[in-house]
Amino acid sequence: MPRTAVVALGGNAITREGQSGTHSEQAANARAMAAAVCSLRDAGWQVVLVHGNGPQVGNLVIQQDEAAHEVPPLPLFCLDAMTEGQLGSLLTLALHEQAGDTLPGVVSVVTHVVVSPDDPAFTHPAKPIGPFLDREQADRLAAGGRWQVAEDAGRGYRRVVASPQPLDIVETEAIRALVDRGMIVTAAGGGGVPVVAEGRGYRGIDAVIDKDLAAQQLAQSLDAGALVLVTDVDQVLLDFGSPQQRPVTELTADEAQRHLDDGQFPEGSMGPKVRAAIGFVRGGGQAAVITSAQRAVRSLDGEPHPDDEVGTRIVAERVRLEGIS
Amino acid sequence: MPRTAVVALGGNAITREGQSGTHSEQAANARAMAAAVCSLRDAGWQVVLVHGNGPQVGNLVIQQDEAAHEVPPLPLFCLDAMTEGQLGSLLTLALHEQAGDTLPGVVSVVTHVVVSPDDPAFTHPAKPIGPFLDREQADRLAAGGRWQVAEDAGRGYRRVVASPQPLDIVETEAIRALVDRGMIVTAAGGGGVPVVAEGRGYRGIDAVIDKDLAAQQLAQSLDAGALVLVTDVDQVLLDFGSPQQRPVTELTADEAQRHLDDGQFPEGSMGPKVRAAIGFVRGGGQAAVITSAQRAVRSLDGEPHPDDEVGTRIVAERVRLEGIS
Repeated sequence: MPRTAVVALGGNAITREGQSGTHSEQAANARAMAAAVCSLRDAGWQVVLVHGNGPQVGNLVIQQDEAAHEVPPLPLFCLDAMTEGQLGSLLTLALHEQAGDTLPGVVSVVTHVVVSPDDPAFTHPAKPIGPFLDREQADRLAAGGRWQVAEDAGRGYRRVVASPQPLDIVETEAIRALVDRGMIVTAAGGGGVPVVAEGRGYRGIDAVIDKDLAAQQLAQSLDAGALVLVTDVDQVLLDFGSPQQRPVTELTADEAQRHLDDGQFPEGSMGPKVRAAIGFVRGGGQAAVITSAQRAVRSLDGEPHPDDEVGTRIVAERVRLEGIS
Repeated sequence: MPRTAVVALGGNAITREGQSGTHSEQAANARAMAAAVCSLRDAGWQVVLVHGNGPQVGNLVIQQDEAAHEVPPLPLFCLDAMTEGQLGSLLTLALHEQAGDTLPGVVSVVTHVVVSPDDPAFTHPAKPIGPFLDREQADRLAAGGRWQVAEDAGRGYRRVVASPQPLDIVETEAIRALVDRGMIVTAAGGGGVPVVAEGRGYRGIDAVIDKDLAAQQLAQSLDAGALVLVTDVDQVLLDFGSPQQRPVTELTADEAQRHLDDGQFPEGSMGPKVRAAIGFVRGGGQAAVITSAQRAVRSLDGEPHPDDEVGTRIVAERVRLEGIS
């Protein structure tokens, strides 16, 4: 039975900074991600892939608003579900192309993630989505009642939505059944469709869950061996932007927590990754890795590598591991 | 091991004639469908649910076009994938609410369906999607190059897209694994994301596959015991609209084929259902049923019922069955 790695990649990995989000851009980026996933697979890992949806749900929001005079806009949680379908399909096709017939299968599961209706994120929505707006656009949107708008550090205004803490993955057993068959599974895309328990079932709720935290929750639910948080940089940097800036190869959860408390990792970027990594190893996971797609395999293959070929590993306690099993 | 029924329901069952497609309309309609599915389940059937996406993909097309000056429109096959996510989530939540904890699980799989690039549907796109247009709108759209437009019997113009024959379901083994665990699975939504084989994998291709034919293909791939084609009417009507109009309780595949050849069943409504039913029983399936959600269970429960309580059953040969096993 191979070990399982849950791999989280950003919506920015699929529509990159400065790209507008055409299908050919997305397909080319998905191809690069699929190559990294297949390398992990070749190194003996079962892979569950979690993707973000920031740029894509931002585009959907614009389209829904622009056509509102003709087509009733759907709630935000429905747009999350749409991005699960679209990006799940995109990644499935990229993985088939990369892996060919060498796999028992590739499959994307529409995933629902339970949150608390009392999560403070619902009273203080803080996750920006969609494009920057000028003051006039912002006032108009806010007056419409569908969106809250906040100023973003001098760069203009943006829609802000709640980003609550994921508590449970509704489709855990389905995902486990597929992983057990040896399939590469895409799940909890865009952080999953946020739901709250209600009656005998669940009700969708408007939010965008952080995909790194959703990946952490999924990794714990699946008892995965590793959580891989893919980002643009090879390693976590300490004292970023200062003369003391330095990459770091290994952190214990306690060390990472101290740096987080010191404000080393900004919310919107490295913060959620470090929090997800800490949560995973404190919840019993063996190791979390924060790194680039290029270094993901070497960070997990159990071979000794120089520090400048691996990512940043977050572990429960400092033990020089010969690999993660 | 319970028997498996593949149940196809129209996109019109989720956004009804005259509705605009708000989320609360969709959720109420999904609830009614979920009740029918759970009754089938209570009668001892494993259920795989296939939904259409006509009204929903039509709305997405409008939104994509209206915001094209700001957001690059995605290809049609990506919009199919979006409707799989959105409607798969909608039905999953409705099924949870209906079934509560009585099930091992409910799950929606983003499904890809293989078609031939040489299917004549690609040179003669004939499936209308989206709203009716006037001549000026139609000319402008056609000139844009993204859409073909055709006149629809005096009611105006509509976008027309290819609707090729489904040949294979890429995710068959994943769906089978989930059904084997006792889960209710939503799959091939909107007819699935159309793909053609290319290189080691598949390439998306712009089309909307008929959901009844996709359901037939999926039922065959899964060796399902029954194919249930849910529609607005309780039974198939012969000589529709004439003084000889009459409902029919059972047809052999040969009889159904003769009526089809006689032009009894218009394309765009009953035609694809009858063709799917014939294909299923000729491919080795035991029986297909065309009926309303209300009559689905009594049509399959193996008990003797009066003709006015069941649907229309299509069988390979006329045998008075005491049920389908």
